[in-house]
Amino acid sequence: MDLNRCCIHTITTKPWTLTESVEHYAAAGVKGISVWQNAVEGMTHAQAGELIRRNGLDVVSYVRGGFFPHTSAQERAKAIDHNKKLVEEAAALGAPLIVLVCGASPDQSLEVSRQQIQEGIEAVLPLAEQLNVKLAIEPLHPMYAADRSAINSLAQANDMAEAIGSSHIGVAVDVYHVWWEPELEKQIIRCGANGHLLAYHVCDWKVNTLDLLNDRGLMGEGCIDLKKISGWVDQTGFDGYVEVEIFSNIYWQTDQHEFLGKITDAFQKI
Amino acid sequence: MDLNRCCIHTITTKPWTLTESVEHYAAAGVKGISVWQNAVEGMTHAQAGELIRRNGLDVVSYVRGGFFPHTSAQERAKAIDHNKKLVEEAAALGAPLIVLVCGASPDQSLEVSRQQIQEGIEAVLPLAEQLNVKLAIEPLHPMYAADRSAINSLAQANDMAEAIGSSHIGVAVDVYHVWWEPELEKQIIRCGANGHLLAYHVCDWKVNTLDLLNDRGLMGEGCIDLKKISGWVDQTGFDGYVEVEIFSNIYWQTDQHEFLGKITDAFQKI
Repeated sequence: MDLNRCCIHTITTKPWTLTESVEHYAAAGVKGISVWQNAVEGMTHAQAGELIRRNGLDVVSYVRGGFFPHTSAQERAKAIDHNKKLVEEAAALGAPLIVLVCGASPDQSLEVSRQQIQEGIEAVLPLAEQLNVKLAIEPLHPMYAADRSAINSLAQANDMAEAIGSSHIGVAVDVYHVWWEPELEKQIIRCGANGHLLAYHVCDWKVNTLDLLNDRGLMGEGCIDLKKISGWVDQTGFDGYVEVEIFSNIYWQTDQHEFLGKITDAFQKI
Repeated sequence: MDLNRCCIHTITTKPWTLTESVEHYAAAGVKGISVWQNAVEGMTHAQAGELIRRNGLDVVSYVRGGFFPHTSAQERAKAIDHNKKLVEEAAALGAPLIVLVCGASPDQSLEVSRQQIQEGIEAVLPLAEQLNVKLAIEPLHPMYAADRSAINSLAQANDMAEAIGSSHIGVAVDVYHVWWEPELEKQIIRCGANGHLLAYHVCDWKVNTLDLLNDRGLMGEGCIDLKKISGWVDQTGFDGYVEVEIFSNIYWQTDQHEFLGKITDAFQKI
């Protein structure tokens, strides 16, 4: 994989400030950055966008919106307001896309949560269209179905994106969440064919995963066949950034310069 | 749920010997026991079966066979031999059923692993039919797809059971693995209708799961809607045991008598 297509999520190098991430990514030959909300600190979103572009990087996505389902109508309304604010922040940042971690509530069924997700997205969509910020539904691994997302397969994400139907809705494919899906090739082709494949995230699934949240692997150190999946994504004509998103208690404790070197090496071996 | 339908897996009270489990389960009004291989120690399988029946309990299943996929043909042949030995042990124990944790290898694709699983089951099946021991394919949660099972949904388990087609093949439905499945109701009805629903396992999914393997919850302390799923199982006409299978580092460290009391209380609230 050509380093020109490499984007890194700020959460991947969590110990760094946004300024440090931007400067070090650029120096390493990385061309894109996906900005997590927590990374924008001590500056406005417009200033963050300027900082990034001044260093020659593209803002690839703003992470992360969603979390629409709640048993209380008041909480659901608050979630919609929060997502509208995120759309405004993304526009100020110059991010063309927001990744949606859609949410789930352990106190209601997954079916009800999915309905609330669709209603939430539809409430935010007019502003997203107006400000030209796309919304990407990211299916999350079923181990997050209790409280993080009721959308647990690319098939479900595709269904919802198609049901909503807008030039500004689509899906984000993260290998960590969907690598096990029996119909993965078919579902990647499906979202690619209708213009819904908006983002492609890579990392790896460690065979002995120690933590449900923060033990993702560097590309190549797990069991995901990244070449095969990336080939399916390529076949759709997707030519956007390939985004490295690694949550890792282990890597966060190491020297982040060395870690960045490992990332760019591993990226080029995909 | 009537305590007369309660079966407990020996692994649930791991600190106890088989003799202790049998005596304490019987005293608590539990009627069935599913025996893990490691529980049969210091006695033959026939003696274990006698011990169980002498205490008024039914042997519900023998746990666990499977682990068929390997990159080496020699290892696959060894796995088949091992499973044949398990069938003989189950017959000696008087267990009508073996639960199959089918296996997966991180060094090959899930598709290849699934093919090897089917070949493995078909190689063991004649002996299972001869000794009248049924084989239940247990779909495992996708978080175990790397090395524990390439069968990660009830839909896939149903597909394979139907493809194999025998009076001695079917599926085991464990709520922990399949509660998130969008088509769960439909898939339970499907295996119920064709006689493939051989076993039903309960526990709970804790919203803040601390460990991928050994942090299952007691029924009621997680987010699984056990009444709803048990209702679907009931609708199929399934009237077998409802098996409690909880792997929990937390509960294993507590007094097992108290834990057993919590299990029988929670069971009756399903």
